Amino acid sequence: MDTDTIAAISTPIGEGAISIVRMSGPDSIEIASKVFKGKNLKEAASHTIHYGKLIHPETKETVEEVMVTVMKSPKTFTREDIVEINCHGGFVSVNRVLELILENGARLAEPGEFTKRAFLNGRIDLSQAEAVIDLIRAKTDRAMNMALKQMDGRLSRLIQSLRQKLLETLAHVEVNIDYPEYDDVEEMTLEVMKTKTNQVHEEIEQLLQTARQGKILREGIGTAIIGRPNVGKSSLLNALAHENKAIVTDIPGTTRDVIEEYVNVRGVPLRLIDTAGIRETEDIVEKIGVERSRKVLKEADLVLLVLNYGDEWTEEDENLFKAVEGMDVIVIVNKTDLPRKINMDQVKERSKQYSLVTTSLIQEKGIDELEQAIADLFFEGDLDAGDLTYVSNVRHIQLLKEAKQSLGDAISGIEAGMPIDVVQIDVTRAWEILGEIVGDTVSDSLIDQLFSQFCLGK
Amino acid sequence: MDTDTIAAISTPIGEGAISIVRMSGPDSIEIASKVFKGKNLKEAASHTIHYGKLIHPETKETVEEVMVTVMKSPKTFTREDIVEINCHGGFVSVNRVLELILENGARLAEPGEFTKRAFLNGRIDLSQAEAVIDLIRAKTDRAMNMALKQMDGRLSRLIQSLRQKLLETLAHVEVNIDYPEYDDVEEMTLEVMKTKTNQVHEEIEQLLQTARQGKILREGIGTAIIGRPNVGKSSLLNALAHENKAIVTDIPGTTRDVIEEYVNVRGVPLRLIDTAGIRETEDIVEKIGVERSRKVLKEADLVLLVLNYGDEWTEEDENLFKAVEGMDVIVIVNKTDLPRKINMDQVKERSKQYSLVTTSLIQEKGIDELEQAIADLFFEGDLDAGDLTYVSNVRHIQLLKEAKQSLGDAISGIEAGMPIDVVQIDVTRAWEILGEIVGDTVSDSLIDQLFSQFCLGK
Repeated sequence: MDTDTIAAISTPIGEGAISIVRMSGPDSIEIASKVFKGKNLKEAASHTIHYGKLIHPETKETVEEVMVTVMKSPKTFTREDIVEINCHGGFVSVNRVLELILENGARLAEPGEFTKRAFLNGRIDLSQAEAVIDLIRAKTDRAMNMALKQMDGRLSRLIQSLRQKLLETLAHVEVNIDYPEYDDVEEMTLEVMKTKTNQVHEEIEQLLQTARQGKILREGIGTAIIGRPNVGKSSLLNALAHENKAIVTDIPGTTRDVIEEYVNVRGVPLRLIDTAGIRETEDIVEKIGVERSRKVLKEADLVLLVLNYGDEWTEEDENLFKAVEGMDVIVIVNKTDLPRKINMDQVKERSKQYSLVTTSLIQEKGIDELEQAIADLFFEGDLDAGDLTYVSNVRHIQLLKEAKQSLGDAISGIEAGMPIDVVQIDVTRAWEILGEIVGDTVSDSLIDQLFSQFCLGK
Repeated sequence: MDTDTIAAISTPIGEGAISIVRMSGPDSIEIASKVFKGKNLKEAASHTIHYGKLIHPETKETVEEVMVTVMKSPKTFTREDIVEINCHGGFVSVNRVLELILENGARLAEPGEFTKRAFLNGRIDLSQAEAVIDLIRAKTDRAMNMALKQMDGRLSRLIQSLRQKLLETLAHVEVNIDYPEYDDVEEMTLEVMKTKTNQVHEEIEQLLQTARQGKILREGIGTAIIGRPNVGKSSLLNALAHENKAIVTDIPGTTRDVIEEYVNVRGVPLRLIDTAGIRETEDIVEKIGVERSRKVLKEADLVLLVLNYGDEWTEEDENLFKAVEGMDVIVIVNKTDLPRKINMDQVKERSKQYSLVTTSLIQEKGIDELEQAIADLFFEGDLDAGDLTYVSNVRHIQLLKEAKQSLGDAISGIEAGMPIDVVQIDVTRAWEILGEIVGDTVSDSLIDQLFSQFCLGK
């Protein structure tokens, strides 16, 4: 168990009114006291906030004007003493505050280390901890609801109830071993085991069926916009972005290459691929249309293939259709404001396995239909994160598949008349695998790796 | 005076551990109570923080897990009741919380409205309020120190002392008018007035001399990197950015066009112009070198003109030198790792009014010298924001110039033997103009305009 005091910037980096530097650990209050001029923080009651200045202990210079929150163990996020320093937003201010804290005894936290402490100190289990990061990264309301429920322990409780059932069957086996004198015990035990194992197997199967939608909700649909030059790719991008409040994700300190744009189309988060490429190529001289298309298609879950209503069908269009074969595609015939030159029969023939939408983006026509087509493609029926428990995390999905496999082996074993202690091994294995989801049976290195995906300050 | 309750997101937008939604106004606590499940906030002591959940009052759904801080009037930033809701970072979470608050009686704050209330309620004066935004936007430690001092009221006190001196001379005039029977009073009054006016005039002059450096500290130096294709502009950009932690400023929801990159070179903040242009044109096929150069030169305070050591001097280089005539230029001869082809005598001759640095960016040579050249160009001697009071705000500079002009007129008037009541008008005018800096004499529309430059949530 770590017992040092960690610190990090806990708000996003950028210009804003307020930024927060957060400390957790036994020396939090001591360290804050060294640099804070205002109320004596050591005497402050827990869960109180205080105005004052941060003063450099040597130079006596004012570093910042701040509000300091003191929260004492154990009723805190990490169950340790926590001090939060609210300073002015902006790049320099918050970095100065962090530096001052680090100079005075705190250690820079690793990504996710606050949440890791919450986990290690037993405040939350592993799937709840993982939900914290999903919550932060949520791109839509639905994704957020899903994460909130997971954080609330809904998935944990479901997994624990499955484990409990397996544990009960395993207990039965122990009974069998303890009382071998009863003849029919082994048979009865196998019968009970088969029923219970089948039940859990089925429940896992149902949970896994939520995985695709869950994953989409969580990560967004990688969406490529392709088409010949001048068909309106850039307008399509803007139409989607403006109608739906694009979320641009940027990591400060890096170049624009890492910018990801998300748009939220009727609750479906689209992660738009290479939007910079679209803007660039349409800005300057677009030569590299098909080349770019091939590149972005590799990452895409969904293709928006744009054709020009006011132009004839070309070989390039044909090539694009060939390139997207077997993918989820929506064909968009844009520029219906122009006189028709394209052969719509040909378009329909070529698009028969796909959705087809006609638009005039310049006149803002057809955008609703397009959005509906996108929603229909990904959610048959109405998606509602309301009651279902979704599984969305790749790690959870993988573990559920493994657990299902072990239970499948157990069932086959019972049916093949294998001895009970062989079957027992498979069931025990499934019980352990499920334990990894909530963190009951999980290695230190896995824990380290999981939390390292978090952002700093969480 | 506004008496409604305002709310806004007060942390930068992006992925982070914590985001804050802030409310200010008489109904803050009432509104928070409607949606908060946890302690009764109406009974909470001032300056305390409480864990709980936000629940939608109609659907009863959990909106977020939050920490709520209650701060009661008048000991708050705005002198009104303030409630701050700390929720999970990320785009969706914080927007949901804001929406909930707005649905339950708060109004979305305008940019700067919190600080505006602090000003209107007398907690800070106008120049202090302006320092708040400088603090947030500060790109370097020095800029931040400058802003901190202004926020502390240092500029305000200086301005008020100047106004006090002018007020004293004006009082003298009143004495003169009240006791006209004494013959020499007018003469003595004019003498005192001349001395005092001269003094203030000089102090303003000194303050204005800090303006250029102050403005540089605050806004950064618009820096253009120009040169023929393949001379290493992109490498120069990367060298500056990597050595000095580039700060990329982005506004979510807009395109990459607004991204500004800052690098901090020995305390000098360079605002790099059109870095996307450099990356693009060097990425693909650079044809538009000189064209682009002309465009970026319009915005530039500093030009980094890059030549190729391993190539001959061309007409294009000559054209670039012509284009930058009269500007602050540093000439960089890059690629000294290649065999020399350029005529260095010619380079030296052509660069004689500029600084000249040779580099091999690929071998990381000469970068120190370049940074020194940049620092030297902008700060003769060592810049130290330590003791001086800097004036950096364009509005302040303009007002100081006007006040100086009025005082100049007064002095000329005295020297030309103008009657005292004419001189009095000019001095009174200067006193009023200085008042605008601290906000004593300032119109409502100016106040609105000033605060609209703030970011949301401040």
